[in-house]
Amino acid sequence: MKRKHLYEMTWQEAEKAIESSKGVAIIPVGSIEQHGPHLPVGTDSFVAIGLADAALEQTDVLVCPPLWLGYCPHHMVLPGSISIRPEILIGLAYDVMKSLHTHGVDKFIFINGHRIVNIIWLQLAAEKAQNELGVKVKIFDPAYMSKELIEATEGMGPVGHAEEIESSHMMVLHPELTHMELAEDHPVKATELYSVDPGYPKDTLCYVPTACSEAAKHVAETKGVSGCPTKSNKEFGQKYHDYLTARLLQVIEALRSE
Amino acid sequence: MKRKHLYEMTWQEAEKAIESSKGVAIIPVGSIEQHGPHLPVGTDSFVAIGLADAALEQTDVLVCPPLWLGYCPHHMVLPGSISIRPEILIGLAYDVMKSLHTHGVDKFIFINGHRIVNIIWLQLAAEKAQNELGVKVKIFDPAYMSKELIEATEGMGPVGHAEEIESSHMMVLHPELTHMELAEDHPVKATELYSVDPGYPKDTLCYVPTACSEAAKHVAETKGVSGCPTKSNKEFGQKYHDYLTARLLQVIEALRSE
Amino acid sequence: MKRKHLYEMTWQEAEKAIESSKGVAIIPVGSIEQHGPHLPVGTDSFVAIGLADAALEQTDVLVCPPLWLGYCPHHMVLPGSISIRPEILIGLAYDVMKSLHTHGVDKFIFINGHRIVNIIWLQLAAEKAQNELGVKVKIFDPAYMSKELIEATEGMGPVGHAEEIESSHMMVLHPELTHMELAEDHPVKATELYSVDPGYPKDTLCYVPTACSEAAKHVAETKGVSGCPTKSNKEFGQKYHDYLTARLLQVIEALRSE
Amino acid sequence: MKRKHLYEMTWQEAEKAIESSKGVAIIPVGSIEQHGPHLPVGTDSFVAIGLADAALEQTDVLVCPPLWLGYCPHHMVLPGSISIRPEILIGLAYDVMKSLHTHGVDKFIFINGHRIVNIIWLQLAAEKAQNELGVKVKIFDPAYMSKELIEATEGMGPVGHAEEIESSHMMVLHPELTHMELAEDHPVKATELYSVDPGYPKDTLCYVPTACSEAAKHVAETKGVSGCPTKSNKEFGQKYHDYLTARLLQVIEALRSE
Amino acid sequence: MKRKHLYEMTWQEAEKAIESSKGVAIIPVGSIEQHGPHLPVGTDSFVAIGLADAALEQTDVLVCPPLWLGYCPHHMVLPGSISIRPEILIGLAYDVMKSLHTHGVDKFIFINGHRIVNIIWLQLAAEKAQNELGVKVKIFDPAYMSKELIEATEGMGPVGHAEEIESSHMMVLHPELTHMELAEDHPVKATELYSVDPGYPKDTLCYVPTACSEAAKHVAETKGVSGCPTKSNKEFGQKYHDYLTARLLQVIEALRSE
Amino acid sequence: MKRKHLYEMTWQEAEKAIESSKGVAIIPVGSIEQHGPHLPVGTDSFVAIGLADAALEQTDVLVCPPLWLGYCPHHMVLPGSISIRPEILIGLAYDVMKSLHTHGVDKFIFINGHRIVNIIWLQLAAEKAQNELGVKVKIFDPAYMSKELIEATEGMGPVGHAEEIESSHMMVLHPELTHMELAEDHPVKATELYSVDPGYPKDTLCYVPTACSEAAKHVAETKGVSGCPTKSNKEFGQKYHDYLTARLLQVIEALRSE
Repeated sequence: MKRKHLYEMTWQEAEKAIESSKGVAIIPVGSIEQHGPHLPVGTDSFVAIGLADAALEQTDVLVCPPLWLGYCPHHMVLPGSISIRPEILIGLAYDVMKSLHTHGVDKFIFINGHRIVNIIWLQLAAEKAQNELGVKVKIFDPAYMSKELIEATEGMGPVGHAEEIESSHMMVLHPELTHMELAEDHPVKATELYSVDPGYPKDTLCYVPTACSEAAKHVAETKGVSGCPTKSNKEFGQKYHDYLTARLLQVIEALRSE
Repeated sequence: MKRKHLYEMTWQEAEKAIESSKGVAIIPVGSIEQHGPHLPVGTDSFVAIGLADAALEQTDVLVCPPLWLGYCPHHMVLPGSISIRPEILIGLAYDVMKSLHTHGVDKFIFINGHRIVNIIWLQLAAEKAQNELGVKVKIFDPAYMSKELIEATEGMGPVGHAEEIESSHMMVLHPELTHMELAEDHPVKATELYSVDPGYPKDTLCYVPTACSEAAKHVAETKGVSGCPTKSNKEFGQKYHDYLTARLLQVIEALRSE
Repeated sequence: MKRKHLYEMTWQEAEKAIESSKGVAIIPVGSIEQHGPHLPVGTDSFVAIGLADAALEQTDVLVCPPLWLGYCPHHMVLPGSISIRPEILIGLAYDVMKSLHTHGVDKFIFINGHRIVNIIWLQLAAEKAQNELGVKVKIFDPAYMSKELIEATEGMGPVGHAEEIESSHMMVLHPELTHMELAEDHPVKATELYSVDPGYPKDTLCYVPTACSEAAKHVAETKGVSGCPTKSNKEFGQKYHDYLTARLLQVIEALRSE
Repeated sequence: MKRKHLYEMTWQEAEKAIESSKGVAIIPVGSIEQHGPHLPVGTDSFVAIGLADAALEQTDVLVCPPLWLGYCPHHMVLPGSISIRPEILIGLAYDVMKSLHTHGVDKFIFINGHRIVNIIWLQLAAEKAQNELGVKVKIFDPAYMSKELIEATEGMGPVGHAEEIESSHMMVLHPELTHMELAEDHPVKATELYSVDPGYPKDTLCYVPTACSEAAKHVAETKGVSGCPTKSNKEFGQKYHDYLTARLLQVIEALRSE
Repeated sequence: MKRKHLYEMTWQEAEKAIESSKGVAIIPVGSIEQHGPHLPVGTDSFVAIGLADAALEQTDVLVCPPLWLGYCPHHMVLPGSISIRPEILIGLAYDVMKSLHTHGVDKFIFINGHRIVNIIWLQLAAEKAQNELGVKVKIFDPAYMSKELIEATEGMGPVGHAEEIESSHMMVLHPELTHMELAEDHPVKATELYSVDPGYPKDTLCYVPTACSEAAKHVAETKGVSGCPTKSNKEFGQKYHDYLTARLLQVIEALRSE
Repeated sequence: MKRKHLYEMTWQEAEKAIESSKGVAIIPVGSIEQHGPHLPVGTDSFVAIGLADAALEQTDVLVCPPLWLGYCPHHMVLPGSISIRPEILIGLAYDVMKSLHTHGVDKFIFINGHRIVNIIWLQLAAEKAQNELGVKVKIFDPAYMSKELIEATEGMGPVGHAEEIESSHMMVLHPELTHMELAEDHPVKATELYSVDPGYPKDTLCYVPTACSEAAKHVAETKGVSGCPTKSNKEFGQKYHDYLTARLLQVIEALRSE
């Protein structure tokens, strides 16, 4: 029998599911933001949901409703993007944890499909919850959890935006929403002393979201792409998805055994 | 061709969709909260999503990602319920409107599946957006938009919680998650000078969410039900759904013509 | 001997009054906002104060200083109106309850003379106080507490603004401030799927305060009146006042017996 | 013809009153707090209201509804005291100014009957309003505005709490609420390097409201009095009232001529 | 052996220093703001730091890192001035006290080099800490702690800005940053019913920071000076410094003995 | 002639310094937190200040007063640590930038001596300032700016806490506060799927500050050290300092030329 998402359960089913999850819950977090001409604006959320669903198929874990919306001030220059203030997102994530904690959940994994920008507010929500509620919080981000795989794979990376890595993943998760025929390559530009790739081995300034005025110039040239999505392929997408799912299960099992 | 939800569109599709919607967007809002032994905790969100989807089938309107989570302090006594502070929800709804307004959306319909409790914060978010952003905001709530139908229907109502009205609706929207065999009747208790039914014709104090301590006593008797879900039937559910969909389309068309 | 308002008592008198009130306090809440050419801007506050005073004549209840100011963004287009942000009013009402709770008051009745707009923030203040302080809070609003009387009375209603109901009431409470010779009728306009009357039996969107830009157009035609104040009469005003006073005493006595 | 308070005016009267006031408005601010066995808890508000009323008798100035409630954490140890957080009071005072500013009021005088403790938040509200709204704000406090008179008067002062100065004033303003037969003397205790008297000529630490735990010890001995109220007399009360009224008119006229 | 500042200690040294301080800590607070043509913008902070250092030479007290930045909206018209919102400064001061309180510090002395404007927010931080953390807080301000000395000294005062009192003090604390050759006299202007001098014996309105628009006019004439800095002299500066240091040690010893 | 820090300048000097800096300012940011038995609690602030001073020796840049205090909830278990809430620090950093922006500064470099934990709130302050004030903000963190050097250096790293990298640096910056004789080695523990080292090449969960309860266990074993400070040496410290200074100058010059 297929495991259910929390929102599909009655409260009596939820009670049992929390027990069999050993108090471990996943909260998928994404963003609604431009992803170039070939990927849907919901890409980051689909990635987080896709990984949560993959875990749910294989183990007892509570999967909470996704937080579809994230913090993306740097993408507001293109239609369809929605950015939420980080203090609101911190409050939202905190209240979810606080609510579920009253029902016995005490270990949370945020799967973040939106990479570096959401990580900022997730860290603050996590610290607050750990110290005020006494729960454990892990932030699982595909870009940070696949450094070894990307390093070992020819032609994938660096991490950019709507590039070959997330495009390949979307070919697996939502082929019907992935329009590879519209993909355009705009290779990640080398900037002195700066990179958003989590595996970047050289000296770097720390990440700050691009200001709107800068972003406007950038998208005028690139239609919102940083990277080479035409290199995407379903085979790598499946490998990447399986790799991340395995990593996620590893984190879940570690929390279940505590 | 089926119309897409915003999250399924590329930014270029979103640009066109906003134009053909004439600036009208729907934001489905629900809650994750106990709904008795027979309905899923996501019921209120499913109701809002179900009506948004029905509208999307029939007209050009932008459908935003659902806000799955609402304000339900009075339901926190049963597992699976998640309550978010109203000031956080106001910030969230406001930021969605502010973001979409930069892309040309200027008329918003919140479909609220959670009835009276979410209305409170939606009113504050709506006022703020109307006066600060210059947009128009409508709050469409099934319980308020079906007063005439319920009045004219034998054996349905009053509005309670997990009662025959929303149970019938869920039999249509999500029969696979609706467990009528587990439904129990706990008729809405008459309280002097108080009712949560929007059509209540008698003198009443204004709504205040039940305090947790009171709610705990109540659910111990009722398992979270106020009403008679065993009276539910799919036929009424369909009629109710169609009635509300027609009302929703009426509101959308009025906004499209402004 | 006449009972005193809290502000007239010494702290030793307050101590005794709290005891004899059995912990029940009234907080009158109003608004300073335009009320057409014939009523003072303090009308809503006078209504709340008038009912509190009537109760104080008949029973032991603690009457707190009035909150003269409310939330009325939709009336800011005419001189003399003062609107306070709802988050400030929530804080104010909460701190009053928190303070009095330290002295033994644990049941609060807000009498709201400003109808639907203040109810929004009162609900949030009430929920917060109930769950955080462990007190009981009732919101007593004349428009909701006289539905039966208005229904049974020819020629009164629907609820609008500065209409025949509150004008009749003011003829009794403050005839010296009620200028019936200046009253003008501007009947409540029927709007499709919308009404602010609490007894409205038909389908309706939920209340959202009119945006300033809309309100400006409206008052240009109506001088701020929605309804037919020329129908007002002192006889009905007295009946209405007595009816509401009786309802209020009923609520007080129920709380005193808990 | 007697001039009206704002709350007694129709909006058309308010419009004219704002014009004839030359944009000058008074906002009386007080506190509800213990004032020993002989004075009512509303004393500070009565003082502010009494001075505003005296000014209104003599000149065209807009008198706003009183802010009955203030910041008095140090008085919460005795029944009837109500303390509001300063951030809430700042918001309240600011919104009053912002609202009236839209109607043409641009000079505000806060009459503060609560002395040093309210001054703190009034200063912050004043600075914000001056820089954000472009208005002028004066804080008129009887204790600071009568230093010369008190200095010249044998047997009055220093400023304490419920002492001979405010008791004499209340004998004039509200003799029916002033119970001199219950007055007890508890002379202001000399504290090294500390005084709350605004005319204190010696070195002093700055004012900090007494912590509740300290205040509890203090009132156990003094019933809330710091000073010698038995020295009070109506003659001085009247002189003090007239002196302050003259000072207030001086401030109003200066603002009217700007 | 010279006593260290907190920031120079290892945590093991800090542990011992807190013990030998008997729980008494100093927090120097200043401002970065224009001080005329002859004094550095850090003057207020240098004053606070200078007094803290003088105390540290003579007794066991914990000296915390200085809060260099204060609230000075009225000085923003000249380059180099930095003003922080009072709510931020309250949070900062509160968190310092809360943190140190977890390590055993329970008595705090804020030395405020910025006079009346910082006092406002320090009072709010102090009240909050006293009631929420159970600590004792004193606010030590040179201008209030030297009233007797200034009164007894010919040719010094009144308190203005960059005047002869603080200029003399800076000649002792930081002669290398004090450019007496550039000093200009702009005597404090008498304003009817207003003064910022803490020893002002006449009737006065309460302090409100000058609005920027007013301040701009003022500095155009005065280059930011209120007073007669050419009267400054090192001899008085040293006397003033020693006097204040003695006062400070008196406060510290009183707290140490509690 | 030695260049001055902002706090040492008169406003006229500040005016000139801003001009010659071409609008580029440095804000040193640190933390007061335990650094093992051998380093002072001010280490992170000393590092930031030390690099700012080094730059000031070599180029025209405005150096602001240091923000001595940071966000370090995970170090509160040892005496002397002070942690400020991130929302307060964001407000503080923002107000500094807003203030200086009114004087013509439009490019900011935060030098962060506290590594990963301060970066979180600095990113939020930076984004807000970039989009709301229109300034440019760079976050310069030694741990991220020396990845290449550390990679190339035998026996240094990984980044831990009070380890050989920052100990070597402190041997150069503040030998008088660096007690190498007390240094103890507690090598960074390998944790599966987790590291705080910015050059960590393997898959990792994202950083979350250790909860206090965990931290308490950790310091009981390690006295607050993660790493091998006995490997420290002054020679490497100097090399590291020079390397970072060069990197910093590179960033400053790039901003000066924009």
